[in-house]
Formats: sequence, structure tokens, C-alpha cells
Amino acid sequence: MQATVMYGAHDVRVETVPDARLVEPTDALVRVTRACICGSDLWPYNSMTPSETGNRMGHEFIGLVEAVGAAVRTVKQGDLVVAPFAWSDGTCEFCQQGLQTSCLHGGWWGGTELDGGQGEAVRVPQADGTLVTLPVGPDHALMPSLLTLSDVMGTGHHAARAAKVGPGKVVAVVGDGAVGLCGVIAARRLGAERIIFLGRHADRIALGRAFGATDVVSERGDAAIDRVRELTGGLGAHSVLECVGHGEAMRTAVSIARAGGAVGRVGVPQETTIPNGQPTFFANITIAGGPAPVRAYIDQLLPDVLEGRIQPGRVFDRVTNIDGVPDGYRAMNEREAIKVMIEF
Amino acid sequence: MQATVMYGAHDVRVETVPDARLVEPTDALVRVTRACICGSDLWPYNSMTPSETGNRMGHEFIGLVEAVGAAVRTVKQGDLVVAPFAWSDGTCEFCQQGLQTSCLHGGWWGGTELDGGQGEAVRVPQADGTLVTLPVGPDHALMPSLLTLSDVMGTGHHAARAAKVGPGKVVAVVGDGAVGLCGVIAARRLGAERIIFLGRHADRIALGRAFGATDVVSERGDAAIDRVRELTGGLGAHSVLECVGHGEAMRTAVSIARAGGAVGRVGVPQETTIPNGQPTFFANITIAGGPAPVRAYIDQLLPDVLEGRIQPGRVFDRVTNIDGVPDGYRAMNEREAIKVMIEF
Repeated sequence: MQATVMYGAHDVRVETVPDARLVEPTDALVRVTRACICGSDLWPYNSMTPSETGNRMGHEFIGLVEAVGAAVRTVKQGDLVVAPFAWSDGTCEFCQQGLQTSCLHGGWWGGTELDGGQGEAVRVPQADGTLVTLPVGPDHALMPSLLTLSDVMGTGHHAARAAKVGPGKVVAVVGDGAVGLCGVIAARRLGAERIIFLGRHADRIALGRAFGATDVVSERGDAAIDRVRELTGGLGAHSVLECVGHGEAMRTAVSIARAGGAVGRVGVPQETTIPNGQPTFFANITIAGGPAPVRAYIDQLLPDVLEGRIQPGRVFDRVTNIDGVPDGYRAMNEREAIKVMIEF
Repeated sequence: MQATVMYGAHDVRVETVPDARLVEPTDALVRVTRACICGSDLWPYNSMTPSETGNRMGHEFIGLVEAVGAAVRTVKQGDLVVAPFAWSDGTCEFCQQGLQTSCLHGGWWGGTELDGGQGEAVRVPQADGTLVTLPVGPDHALMPSLLTLSDVMGTGHHAARAAKVGPGKVVAVVGDGAVGLCGVIAARRLGAERIIFLGRHADRIALGRAFGATDVVSERGDAAIDRVRELTGGLGAHSVLECVGHGEAMRTAVSIARAGGAVGRVGVPQETTIPNGQPTFFANITIAGGPAPVRAYIDQLLPDVLEGRIQPGRVFDRVTNIDGVPDGYRAMNEREAIKVMIEF
């Protein structure tokens, strides 16, 4: 089958790999119908040490179940399913409490051991705990929005929850990528009174406003911090969604949070420490977040997608087939595209 | 009047200073009856740059109201009052939400502008927002426990709340000083199922056990982390109370928190960054806390003290008069004493 393999920085190839197949009785074999490229794929795209074996890529996909192992009970051949960006057993202590990204028997797609979503088929471990059946056909018009439930929409929602967004809250969103944009959707959905979107690209700002941003801050660094403070009577935002991951974004995020407020971080941190350890202490600012337990959130968000109340699929502004994946990485990296969808 | 002034590291003096007096109509003048030395006083005690003017010291005190300004409504001459370690107006946005340590018109005792608690009398700004009247006389047997409501008991409680302690939770307390010991009391009071106390001194361990610690870990560094993990089935504690403030303690705290758990930090951070930014992200560990809004907690904790359900005053293992304050600093710094009470 064809699949995407990254061999080093800026070296993404589509090549023939061994066909995905059932291995464990708890596996499902899923023929991918839609997948996408993630902002987090750009971290290795810019920094991966050259590798001879390469890493299989992709952790967001929808597909048709082609076969299931003998122990699988909740999905069957022919089902259209969405996969969260982490697989999980659904039964361990962490899964039971809705933190499937810490599943004791779960893990991550791709790498050197498992298939990735940016390929024609995927062996899905722990299929019962991982997959969610979709009540529509594989070419339904809602595919883009449903695909975001595999990661970005759930991740934006996690940032908002970690940042304690709720009715009456002033929210700031750091990061104008697909996750930040979904964070705007999530903040609005959770009742935020005001949503300040930090972004600099006209297309992203327009989409942020369409999703519910009430204010836009296009300054950078200290000027952005000053501007958010100015917009909030000097106090800062109750809830800050950090949707980037690099140090400067995190410094901005913790600097614009109000005393007693919270920063929900979902951008994969590129630094080993969290900045502003003392100011955040003196202001009683909570820092929370991490990899979103998207599996838990699919159940919560799916009705809103199916009924059209939220349209996170609008973050996809480019569609390609598998051959176009390497150029999709390039386009996202150069910020030519917000997010690239792959159709099989 | 006599008051404590710190002029530099290891240079604490008791000397004659100008008498405290009313300045603003919102002030009260309080004759101190009990005060104490705080673990946080030891940070400047070990590091203060020599100063010609010196800093007035002390932020925990009980005293009798001697006079009030014309605008003061809630306390009157003759009242016995306890002061939180920060003064606050009680009316601003932050005070209204119970975060008095971020009061827009509040501040901290001592320094170069205000009186400190380790002196014979104190001008209390914003008396209505700051002081809480006690329904007992100034020599009541509960004085030590009531005095802890000015800081350490409320601070331990804040650590527990920030760490999301509740029924069924496994709690770990980093720091065997007075705050850590009060954290044990708070964790038990909030229903923790298990309380792991990290301590190395026999007297502190005994008190920790008396307060409700179920397990004691006396190892240091990585060995302490391993031991807590061993005691918790490899998972770590749901709630970790960081009651020290130096980098190593914070590293221990974030390393023994369970995925999805929380660290409540109340030790004044001595480092500019928060360690383990990536592992805490991948495990969705929340980092919260800061200066405790003790003013809010006095109302919640006072009944338990008055009715003897908690006995935080047991953290005082030495009593002195004001002349003994410099030696009290030395004794606490050398860990000869857990916490020193000053009687006037």
C-alpha cells in the first residue's frame, strides 16, 4: 500500500510499504478515506534527525472498517469510523476518567512500529476503545468537520476546558493555526463573552471572526501583550488558549492571563521549562492542558457537528490526494495553507 | 515602639522605630499580641542584599484594635483581630471573587513603607477588607492555632485546593515545614484517602502523622520520586502540594504527580521557570497555586479551629518575646525549630 514516510527535516516521501493487516484480536483494519496533515507534524518536518528507516506519519483519519479481530465488539466491517490521534483501550483507570491520552495500554500512531493515518490503510490497536462509528456515508458533505474530531477540534476544546472557559469569561487565543481557530469555536461554544484572537494572516483572521472572535490582536511579542492588556482594562484574559507550543507563544500566553486565570496549553512544548514561573505564581495563574483526550470529546462534539452548529471543517483550505502530501507539508510549513486534507 | 528590621542576610535586629499611627481614614491601628516567623522570611534571611534602611519584617499577627480611622466600619477599638499576610480592600473585582492576594488596592506588610507584624504595633491599611474579628480573648488557649490562620494554615489549604484534593484522592506533600504540615491537615480535612508526607526530621514526621499523613517518604531527589511511584502503583499522586519553593522541590512535585493530576504550589518560587515543561504537558498535569487568599479562607477554617477539629497551632514548637526574634530566625534557618511564635 502507499503511505507517507518522513526521513528527516523537509524529507517527506510517499512510498510503498507493507500492507496494513490485523495482528492482535483487538485490532481493526481500517481503509482510510480522509486524513490530514497536523501542525504538530511540522515540528519534525523542521527538525527531524535523518533516519534510514523513516517514520510513518499521520494521526488524524476517517475510514471504513475492512476487517476486525476476534475480540472486537463495537465496530464491524463496513462501518465508517473516526480515529482519535491516540489509541486507547477504553477500560484502564485513565480511560475511565476520560484521559485516554494517558491510557496504560494505548499509544500513538505512526513512527517505526505502527501505521500512520497518512496512508491507504491502518492497523488500529485496541479498536473497541479507540474507534467511533459515524452515522453517515464516507463522502458526506460533513467529512471535513468530522475529520477535525480526530484532533484539532478536540484539541481546541481541550485548550478551552483547561483554560476554564465559561459564560462571561474573557478569552484570548494564542495561535492562528487550525487548533487556535478551533479554540475560538470551542470558546464560543462554551459561552465566552469575549474572544481575543491573536493572528496576523488575513485569511485566518477572517475565519477566526467567522468562528466567533470578537477582537483581533495582530501585534507580536511585548506589543501583543500590551494590546491584550489594553483591551481588558489592564487585567488580562480569564482564559488563555496556548495553541502553538514554542517558547515565545507560551510567554505571551502566561503574560496575558489575568490574576486567578488559567492558561490551557495544547501546542506541543518545544522548550523544557515553562516560562514566567514567578509572575504566574504571584498572580495565581493555573497552567493546564496537554494532549487532548479527543476520544472523550468526540461524543460531546459529534452532535454539534452533525447538526451543523459548529463547522470546524472550514479550517481545511486545501485538498490533495496522497501524492500531494509532501507538497502539503511544504504549503503548511510556509503558511500557504492553514490545513491540508487528504482524500483517498 | 520596638520592631524587627532586616538589614541583610543573617542580619535581623530588633530596634526602636517610629510608633505606628493612623494615616488614612480606612486604617486601623493594631497593638500586636501574637506574631510569628515565616518560612518565607528565611529566603531574604539567606539572600538579602545589605540595605541601609532595612526592611520591616513580619506578616502574620493577631492583635487588639487600638484605634480606627473615620471610614472603618467592621472593626472597633478593643476587638481582637487576625490579619492575613496580605491586606486588601475587600471590594475590588479580585477580592469579590476571593482572590484577595491580587487585590487592586492591596499589598504586603513590612518593607520600607509599612509596619510589619513582628513589631509592637501595626498600621493596617484597608482595615475593613483586611481584618477578621476573633470571638475570644487575647490569651485564649487557641491563640497558636488562630495565629496560623494569618498564613500557614490558609496556605496549606490553598495548596490542597490548587492540587484539587478531595475524597478518594492520593495526596503527596512536598515540604516538612509548617506549611507542609498544615497541608497535611488541609488534605485530611478535604477528604484525602491517602497522604504521603515527604519529610526527614523525626519531630516533623511525628507531627505529620498526627495530622493525618498515612505514609512517609524520607528519601531525597530521584529516590523520593521512585518511592512515591512505588507507593502509588507506579502512577503517582493525584494531588501534590509543593510547600517549599526551591527548584528541586518543584521538580520532585511535578515528577510525582499522576497523569491528569495537579500540583498546588505555595512555596515562593526561587527559580524563574517551572521545570519539566514537557513531561507535565504529556501527562496533562495542572500546575496551580500562588499566594493564598488567606482572607477568604479564614471564614472557612475558623469554625474548625474554634471547635478544635483542626489544631494547626501545633506547628509552633518555640515561643519567644520580641527580643528573641533574631535567634528565632537562626533557629528556624538551622531547622532547630519548625516555627517560632512571638508573644508580646
